[in-house]
Parts: sequence; C-alpha cells; structure tokens
Amino acid sequence: MALGDILVINPNSNPEVTRGLDAAVAPLRFPGGPGVRCMTLAEGPFGVESQADGAAVVLPLRKLVTTSEAAAFVIACYSDPGLHVCREATAKPVFGIAESGVHAALQRADRFGVVAILERSIPNHVRQLRAQGLAARLAGERALELTVAELADEGRTWDKLLATAVALRDQDGAGAVVLGCAGMSRYRARLEAVLGMPVIDPTQAAVVQALGAVALADAG
Amino acid sequence: MALGDILVINPNSNPEVTRGLDAAVAPLRFPGGPGVRCMTLAEGPFGVESQADGAAVVLPLRKLVTTSEAAAFVIACYSDPGLHVCREATAKPVFGIAESGVHAALQRADRFGVVAILERSIPNHVRQLRAQGLAARLAGERALELTVAELADEGRTWDKLLATAVALRDQDGAGAVVLGCAGMSRYRARLEAVLGMPVIDPTQAAVVQALGAVALADAG
Amino acid sequence: MALGDILVINPNSNPEVTRGLDAAVAPLRFPGGPGVRCMTLAEGPFGVESQADGAAVVLPLRKLVTTSEAAAFVIACYSDPGLHVCREATAKPVFGIAESGVHAALQRADRFGVVAILERSIPNHVRQLRAQGLAARLAGERALELTVAELADEGRTWDKLLATAVALRDQDGAGAVVLGCAGMSRYRARLEAVLGMPVIDPTQAAVVQALGAVALADAG
Amino acid sequence: MALGDILVINPNSNPEVTRGLDAAVAPLRFPGGPGVRCMTLAEGPFGVESQADGAAVVLPLRKLVTTSEAAAFVIACYSDPGLHVCREATAKPVFGIAESGVHAALQRADRFGVVAILERSIPNHVRQLRAQGLAARLAGERALELTVAELADEGRTWDKLLATAVALRDQDGAGAVVLGCAGMSRYRARLEAVLGMPVIDPTQAAVVQALGAVALADAG
Amino acid sequence: MALGDILVINPNSNPEVTRGLDAAVAPLRFPGGPGVRCMTLAEGPFGVESQADGAAVVLPLRKLVTTSEAAAFVIACYSDPGLHVCREATAKPVFGIAESGVHAALQRADRFGVVAILERSIPNHVRQLRAQGLAARLAGERALELTVAELADEGRTWDKLLATAVALRDQDGAGAVVLGCAGMSRYRARLEAVLGMPVIDPTQAAVVQALGAVALADAG
Amino acid sequence: MALGDILVINPNSNPEVTRGLDAAVAPLRFPGGPGVRCMTLAEGPFGVESQADGAAVVLPLRKLVTTSEAAAFVIACYSDPGLHVCREATAKPVFGIAESGVHAALQRADRFGVVAILERSIPNHVRQLRAQGLAARLAGERALELTVAELADEGRTWDKLLATAVALRDQDGAGAVVLGCAGMSRYRARLEAVLGMPVIDPTQAAVVQALGAVALADAG
Repeated sequence: MALGDILVINPNSNPEVTRGLDAAVAPLRFPGGPGVRCMTLAEGPFGVESQADGAAVVLPLRKLVTTSEAAAFVIACYSDPGLHVCREATAKPVFGIAESGVHAALQRADRFGVVAILERSIPNHVRQLRAQGLAARLAGERALELTVAELADEGRTWDKLLATAVALRDQDGAGAVVLGCAGMSRYRARLEAVLGMPVIDPTQAAVVQALGAVALADAG
Repeated sequence: MALGDILVINPNSNPEVTRGLDAAVAPLRFPGGPGVRCMTLAEGPFGVESQADGAAVVLPLRKLVTTSEAAAFVIACYSDPGLHVCREATAKPVFGIAESGVHAALQRADRFGVVAILERSIPNHVRQLRAQGLAARLAGERALELTVAELADEGRTWDKLLATAVALRDQDGAGAVVLGCAGMSRYRARLEAVLGMPVIDPTQAAVVQALGAVALADAG
Repeated sequence: MALGDILVINPNSNPEVTRGLDAAVAPLRFPGGPGVRCMTLAEGPFGVESQADGAAVVLPLRKLVTTSEAAAFVIACYSDPGLHVCREATAKPVFGIAESGVHAALQRADRFGVVAILERSIPNHVRQLRAQGLAARLAGERALELTVAELADEGRTWDKLLATAVALRDQDGAGAVVLGCAGMSRYRARLEAVLGMPVIDPTQAAVVQALGAVALADAG
Repeated sequence: MALGDILVINPNSNPEVTRGLDAAVAPLRFPGGPGVRCMTLAEGPFGVESQADGAAVVLPLRKLVTTSEAAAFVIACYSDPGLHVCREATAKPVFGIAESGVHAALQRADRFGVVAILERSIPNHVRQLRAQGLAARLAGERALELTVAELADEGRTWDKLLATAVALRDQDGAGAVVLGCAGMSRYRARLEAVLGMPVIDPTQAAVVQALGAVALADAG
Repeated sequence: MALGDILVINPNSNPEVTRGLDAAVAPLRFPGGPGVRCMTLAEGPFGVESQADGAAVVLPLRKLVTTSEAAAFVIACYSDPGLHVCREATAKPVFGIAESGVHAALQRADRFGVVAILERSIPNHVRQLRAQGLAARLAGERALELTVAELADEGRTWDKLLATAVALRDQDGAGAVVLGCAGMSRYRARLEAVLGMPVIDPTQAAVVQALGAVALADAG
Repeated sequence: MALGDILVINPNSNPEVTRGLDAAVAPLRFPGGPGVRCMTLAEGPFGVESQADGAAVVLPLRKLVTTSEAAAFVIACYSDPGLHVCREATAKPVFGIAESGVHAALQRADRFGVVAILERSIPNHVRQLRAQGLAARLAGERALELTVAELADEGRTWDKLLATAVALRDQDGAGAVVLGCAGMSRYRARLEAVLGMPVIDPTQAAVVQALGAVALADAG
C-alpha cells in the first residue's frame, strides 16, 4: 500500500513562496517514501506579517486539515498559525515549522538562536517559546529588518543573514541557528558551512517529522 | 552520489536488542534514502541498567563515532549515554533516543508521559529533562518494574505497559507517551491505537532526525 | 470631560451570557467613573467551547476594537481569544478575563486554583499560563464537567462548584480560586464566604483593570 | 450602604511623599466609590532606603491593618514591606505597590521594565519577582541613582527618568515600564506619551485593585 | 591566632530550644576549630510560629550581628527571619538554617522533602524556595501538625515524624529529607538509619557552612 | 572513636594539582576532626580538559569510592565527572566541587558568577546548572582563556582573574564568585579582599560539606 502524502501548506497566497517551499523539501522525497505536496492557501493574505494575518488563516487551515486526504500536515509559516486549532480538529499529525525548527535545533546544540525577518515578531516568538516551556535554551533572536524589496536582493539578504547569524553565535552564544521564516532555505547549507555550526530550515525540520509520522503510522 | 548511512548503535552487547532495533527502524529505510544500519557495541555490558553501565560505554561510543564512516549516529539507549561526549568528538550529527523521543512527543501533545522499565532510572531521566530545560512539560513517568524474565513474556509486558500508559493518560494528564526503552517498539502501534493518542518509539524518533540530517546535508 | 467607556465584549452570541456579564459588572459602575457597556458579538458562535470557536471570533473582535469609540476593552471569554491580535491592532488597553483573573488571584494568595467548565480546555489554559510565565503558582485546575443543560440547574451547579473549589483548596493547596468562565459570577460572593478565601470572577477582575486604565489615562 | 474606605499607607514618615500619593490616587476617587485615604506611618523612618528600613515598619503596618476600620489596604513602598505579615494578620485585602505595579504591567505588555531609584535595591526586587514566579517576564531593571537632593530637581529627574525608560525599551526590550517608587507618579502620563508605551504608577495600580476588591466585596 | 567564633542565635526566647541547638552542634566543635556558641534572643517571642513572630526578631537580630564580635552567624529558625537584612548590615557571613538545610540536601539527592511543624508555614517555605530559585527540586513538604504539648511527647513525635518522612520518600519521591525546624536534631541519626537516606538537620548544616567560612577567612 | 577520613580525589594525574589541593584544604584539618587526604587518580589524564577526559575517569572514580575505606569523597574537578555514578555506587557521601562551590556561593549572595578556565567548558557548566535547577541565579560565567603555560605565570593569571571577576561583578551583577577550577585556591583570599565580595574555592566548599557529613554521621 502506498504511504499517505504530506501536505505542506503555505498560509499566504504568494505562489513564489510555495515554489521555494517545494524546492526546500525536494531532498526529503524518497522513492517509496511519503509524497510531499506543497500548496498555497488561496484564502491567505499575500504575506503573514502580523498576528492579525495569522488569525485570518486559522479557520481556512482548519478546514483544509479536516477535508484533505493527506496523512500529515505542515503549516509553513514561522508563527505557527492555527497549529493548536488544527490539532484539535484532526487526529492526524500536524506540525508547525517554528515548533519543529526549534526542536530540531535543540537536538544539535545546547542553546539556539533565531534569525527573524521582522523585529516586531520577536515578542510573539518568545511568548510561543515560553508557552512551549523551551525559553531556557534560547540564546537570542535577532531580526534582519529587511523590506520585501530588499529580501529580493539575494546578495544583500545574504550579507545581513550572515552578520545576524554571526552575532547570534559570537555575542549570544548560540550553538545552532534556526531560520525564522519559510523562505530562507536556499541559504541554509551555505550559512551552515560558513558558520561551522548547524543551521536549521524549519520547513525541512517539520517535513522530516511528518515523514517519520507517516512512515511509522503506515508501518503499524 | 549515494547518501551517507545512519548508524544505530545498541550500546549493550545483547544482539537480541539489536535485532529489535533493526525491525523498529525498517519502515524508515527508503529506496534512495539514507541507509540505516544497526550494530551491537561489542564492549557494552549485556544490559545498561545503571549509571555505571552507561559510563562504561561512553568511550567506546566516542571511538565509534570518530572512526566510523557513517554520516550520522543514533545512540540507542534511553539514558543517552555519551551523547555530549560524542557531540564534542565529531561534527557529524549524533542523536540520543531519549532526547529525540521527548522532542517528538512535544510536537504531538502539550504534555507527555514516559514509560520507564525501572523505577530507579526515573530520577536520572528527570535530571536529564531538567538539563534540557524540558521538565515543565513532563506529565509523569511511571515504571513497569518488570524483571528481564518477565519482559520476555509478551502478554504480561503488554498488560503492564497498557496499565502504565493508561495511568499516564488518565491520572497524570499525558497527551502522548514515550516508550522509555530501546526495546518496546513492537508494542507501539497497538498501544497508540488502544490509547487513542500518540505513542513514540524513541529509536524511531532519533532515526527520523538522523534521516533528515543526512538527506539535507547531502542536498547541500 | 467625561471619561471614556469600557466595552465588555461577550464573544459568543448568547445574549443570556451578556446579561450575566452586565449584572456582574454593575458594582463597578460609579457616578463619574467610566461607563461599562456589555455587548454580544453578533458574529460569535452560540458558545465558545473549542479552540476553533475561539479562532472564529478573533477578527470580528479585532474589527470591533479598531472601530469602537470605547476607551478600553474587555474580552469576556476565559480562553482570551484574540487578545494579542487586538493589542496589536490598537493602542487602547485590551484586557482578557483569563489573564486578569489570574493576576487578581495572584495578588490575594500565593497559589491559586481554577474551576474550568470543561476538562478539555484545561491543557489550553495551562499552555496560556506557561506563555505568561505564571505556571509556577498554579495550584491546580479542575473541571465541573457539566453540560449546558446541567449548568442551567443552579442547585446542581452550586454543589459541583463548591465540591470542586473545596478540592482545589484542600487537595491542591489553592489559596484563592478563579472562576474559569464568564458566567459564574452569581456564585462568587457565596462561594468566597463558604470557602473562607478569595474567589475571583475574571470579568470583574478585567473590568477593574480597565476602569483604572481609563480613569488614569484621562487624568493625564 | 456606603462602601468601605481604602487606606493607602506611606510607610515612611515624610508627609511630602504622602501628599504625592494623595495626588496620584485622586483620579480613582469616584462619587459612590470607595473612599481613598492616604496616611503617613508615624513610626516609619524618613525614607525606606534599605531592607532594615523596610523591616522597621512591618509590625507598625501589621498593627494598623488589624486595628483600622478601612476595608482594604495599600502599602505604598516599592519593596512591599510587611505585605505577607499583613495578609497573615487580616482577612481584608492588602496590596503591595510593587506587586500590583508588576501585575498591571503584565496585562499591558509581554515584558516589562522597572525604573528603580537606587541600584542597590535591584537585587531585592529581583528576588521578590522570583518569589512571585514572575521573573521570566522582566526585561530589565535600571536605577536612576539620584540623590534625594537631585530628585527634588524635577528637570534633572525627568531627564534621567526618560533616558532610563528609553534604555529599558530600546536595549532591554520592555513593552511597558513600572515606576519603581512611590513618588514618581507626576511623571507617568508625560513619560507614557513620550515613550509610546504603557507606564505604570504602582500606587495607582494597587489602589485600582483595592477599589475592585472593596466594590465587589460590598456587592455581595 | 585563634579562629573567630560562630554565634548560633535562637530567635525565640525559649532556652530549652537553645539547649537543643547546643547539643545538635556539639559534634562540630573541634579543638583548634571555630568556637560555636548558642544564645537565646532575649527579645524573641517564646516561639516563632507566624510571619509576625518572624518580623518581630528582625531588628534585634540585625543589632546582634552588627555589634557582636563573632566571626559568623547562624539564624536558627526555619523561616530564616532577618536573613537578608542581616546580610545587608554586615560583611561577615550570615547563614539561615532553612537555606543551608536545603543546600545541604541538594548535595545528597536529586529531590528533597521537608518535614514542617505546621501546615500553615508551608506556603511561606515554598515562596522562599521560589525566591531562591530552588523550587524545581522540592519533592514535597508535609507537616507534623503536632501541638507544642504533643511535641513534648518523644514517642508520639517520632511516630509522626517517621510516617511523614516515609510519605515524602515513597509518595513524593524525596531522596533526602530536611527537618524543617530548629528542634528535631535529636531524631536525625535514627531517622536517617530507618529511612535509608540522608536526613539533614538544618542547624547543623548552617553551622557547617559557618565553620568553613570562618576557617577559610582566617586562613587568608 | 576516630572520625573517618575524607578522600579528595584529583581525577587528573598531575601531582602538582594534587599538591595545590592539599594546600587548599589545610585550613580545614582540625585536631579531632576528620582527616583530609588528597590523592592523584593514577588512571586520569594529565588534565581534564574535555568531556571525553571527564568520561575517562568515571569508572576509576567509581572503583575508588567502592573500595576505599574513607568516610566521604570529594571529586576535585570542576566538571564533577562521575558524581552521579559514584553516588549510585556507594551510600557514603560524595561531593563534586562544582556543585558544592555553587551551593556555597548561593548562601552568600543572590546571584553568583563563575570564572572558567576555558570558554568551551561553559556550555557544559550551564547545562549542569540547568540539571541542578540552579540556573536562575547564575549572573554569568566568563573564561580566562589562558593556556597551561600562561597559567604557570602567576602575575598574568592574577591580572586576568581579577579582570574577569570584576566583569562578573560590575557587568553581570554577581554578588559572589566561584573559582571554576580545582587549582586557583591560592588566589581566593586576595581576590575576595580586592573585590569586596565572597570568593569561593570549590574544593574547599566540598571539603566543608564532607567534613560536616563525616562529623555528624559519626556523632550518631
């Protein structure tokens, strides 16, 4: 019997982001392994940049996880919108990329750092870590503070990303770094090599968890 | 290029346990995915039942991870012996099954329970959770307190396992259960079905992490 | 100049609950003090009994706090739906009754207990306490587990409420009790007298905070 | 029936401070609301600047709360001297301004900062926060380090206060500020306007709690 | 040069208690070691049974530590009255028996239990543990609830003490027990033998610390 | 009857270090008190500078504590190698100098700092503090980062030690300092005098605990 599929949901309606997710998870598609499909949430805002944006996608996400035939779900936005509502709505595994990214980092280093896109999302991330009981191991979180336009400039993004990750390592004492966004996976391997310590793409981390859950559920 | 292998090390010298590990991780072997090899640590005691037993395998484990050609390692004993020593010794990913089992459970439920084999290992497990900063989400840990002879009786083990897991769920408030041993995976799916909540085999959880680390490292 | 009004929002669409809130806050209306208006959220479900119900009212609440002329807001549902989204949306003070109820209890006793309506909301309440960094002082939370029909029977509700609060005091060590619901204020004074320790109605606690915020803001 | 009075006790014997308290709580006196009286503790030292000074007022405070006819008490010194002794001595509500100030701030922002008068009181404040289980949300505490003479110079005090609060906001990440002293209320509104975030006068915060407790107790 | 003396202060005025302290510390008097003197605080109440009793001895204790020629001080009451005030007042080492008792227990076992005299002092003990940041390792605290008359009956006290300590060990998981009172040292060795785990007399624990501090200070 | 001896074990095989330990504990040898013997672990590495070095001495230490006739043991290496294994192996008291040093500091100041030798051991020290539930009171840990050759230069070591301790006091807020090494005791008294706050030599702190345990055990 074929294994069930993993559905990776981009909660914003920007198909460019979905394409990036698709590329990020490609190495986790194995012959005979679970399928990994990435989709754009039609009802989502173009970007999830506020808590209100996050709130707007909760019920569409809930509808999706209760009606989809997928075997497991990944909510691919670093604020984990709707994660607990979706878990309440289905017995199938649902993973949030922020949660999974942090748990992956905690299995590689004693303390981790997070690179956020925007300064103003940091308090919410910290509150979520406290809710998860994981705040004791946060070395620090620092924001790129780049506009969408600036993020389109890869050279500029890389320079800022590297400087931010170096500060997390050298000033805050991070032993691993989580990319706090669904769209930075293209820099992961290069950053890991330059920093000399693990760099976690959270979407990949969540898909890995989903992959295990699906493969093992089907194994009985 | 072929992906690197994952080496699952049974730190005790009981090949029966290694055979169980091998069966447990079988669903995580995919064509085109990382190989998963299980081996018995020749230098290990027949069972790791004390902290001294754990200490005895630290340097043999360290030697293994520094000389093996595997791409990632799993230390398959629920006290995670030598985990930090091995991480100090190699830049390759090293996973401990207790640590990975707990992190997997935390991505499925708010609070988790652990089924230990022996009452006397519980304080050490709790100390490790405190060291990891994760103790706030432990609902409870309860021991089977079965002798090795009794563990060989599957019916008796199942009855005790079920009763223990039910107590973790109904009296302690656990929303997921971790099997606190490298050798209970054969009961996982059945227990999950009966309990109606996620049951985590920690060896599988660690191999899932290793699988992700290997697949993504090689993906550049 | 007249002080601004406090708007108490019942996020469910049950006007009976709103009437109860109105009675609960009556003692906090002073001549020359802020007005306190209670309203029913038309878009709300008849009862907020799940996380999905809570999610459904977030954006309507946000719209309300950004368009209302009130000077401060109270979200009168013990899961504090939309609290952080509303705070993000307006610089005016927004209070959640669960948060305010707990903070009021913490100013009366070392450890507090919570009487929940439903067992299944307890994990979410505990997660919120962890997010607030307040979990260390929770003595316990216990649920009435009464159906809506049973809640309509005052004698039965009182008996269960009393037994639950006594258990929080005598078995869990609570020194104060928070009524974990927007609709139990009618039992507050009687329960406080029988228990011999403070009993907090969370809607009242939040309105008290709002009252202070409004009176002091206008005082310059 | 008339509501009971709130007695705000200045534990030092400086009547100038009491006059400042009286002005600070004026906006919380409503027709038909509880009376709010401010008094100077005759037995108090001229200033409470050490733990010994705090200890000296504990028993006089206890005597006051057990003999006064007031319905609720506020101990108006930011080290909360005698708070637990007074709570032990009377069933009437007793509030400490440090405790109430912090709880008010926690209902306005995720993390708060404190402006202390003296550097040397900070460790005691932090120990009290730990005792309250609230330390996780302290962004930082910084001292003005002004002498009594310098505090009399309003311009100088304002400049130092503003610089300190800005450092709490911009360097420590505070989302609200508590004025860690019974005598800075005159700067509250102005500081809040300039900072663009909530500033809490702790005496006002405690009187708000007392007001609620009195109004609701009398409401039965 | 002779080493300085350690002054053990019984803050209550009951000389019988002081005699018990004197017997308890006898094994810690070594030829050539610091002298250990026990004295009764004349100003103290006959027993320290409330927080008010504790408050009453703070300033007399402060006066003592600032005027005595002793080299180190032990405040021999399990609520550690005046500990921080005394530390503020002198640069000489001051130890509180509750604090020292707990620290000694934490060096013998992972989690400890406390035998209190009175149920009503438990919340204060717990608050002090939180203030010390040590609450995570408290297995439990249970009270004897014996009257003074009953405490005079050694057989009855022993029976209750044993039952309480057994409950701490078997139900709460304590690996060591602290006698939460200045007057139970006579039972320590016997209880330790029966329980099979460390039992700490807190006065002895504090005198041990003081002994080290004095011996090492004089050693330069 | 003579008291039992305390055995202080230097887990590395450098007899120079053992001689330093011997000098450090000399002030704790009293006529009639427990003997204090210092020995070099023959099986130890020349220095314990990594987690692997620590692991290598665990079983030799275990053998020692189970075969020695000493009444109590001190493991004199600041990473406390084998502490829990040794406690598992013998009912006699076993103390680790890092653990004892921290507990001694916590009885002298609210928050403590640690002077480490090497930057890379800091994460392990912090993990141990988390495991002990003591991390909340760590003000900071800073490393000397001196090579062995540089450590032999007393003037240079002193300068670096002083600068590091001053930073712990003035920048991190430490109220006491622990020397995070078994070999810095010769600087303790001088550093304490210059800093004006307690400086703890951890070997001395552990021997003090052992002294109390032996004296009291023998006292029955």
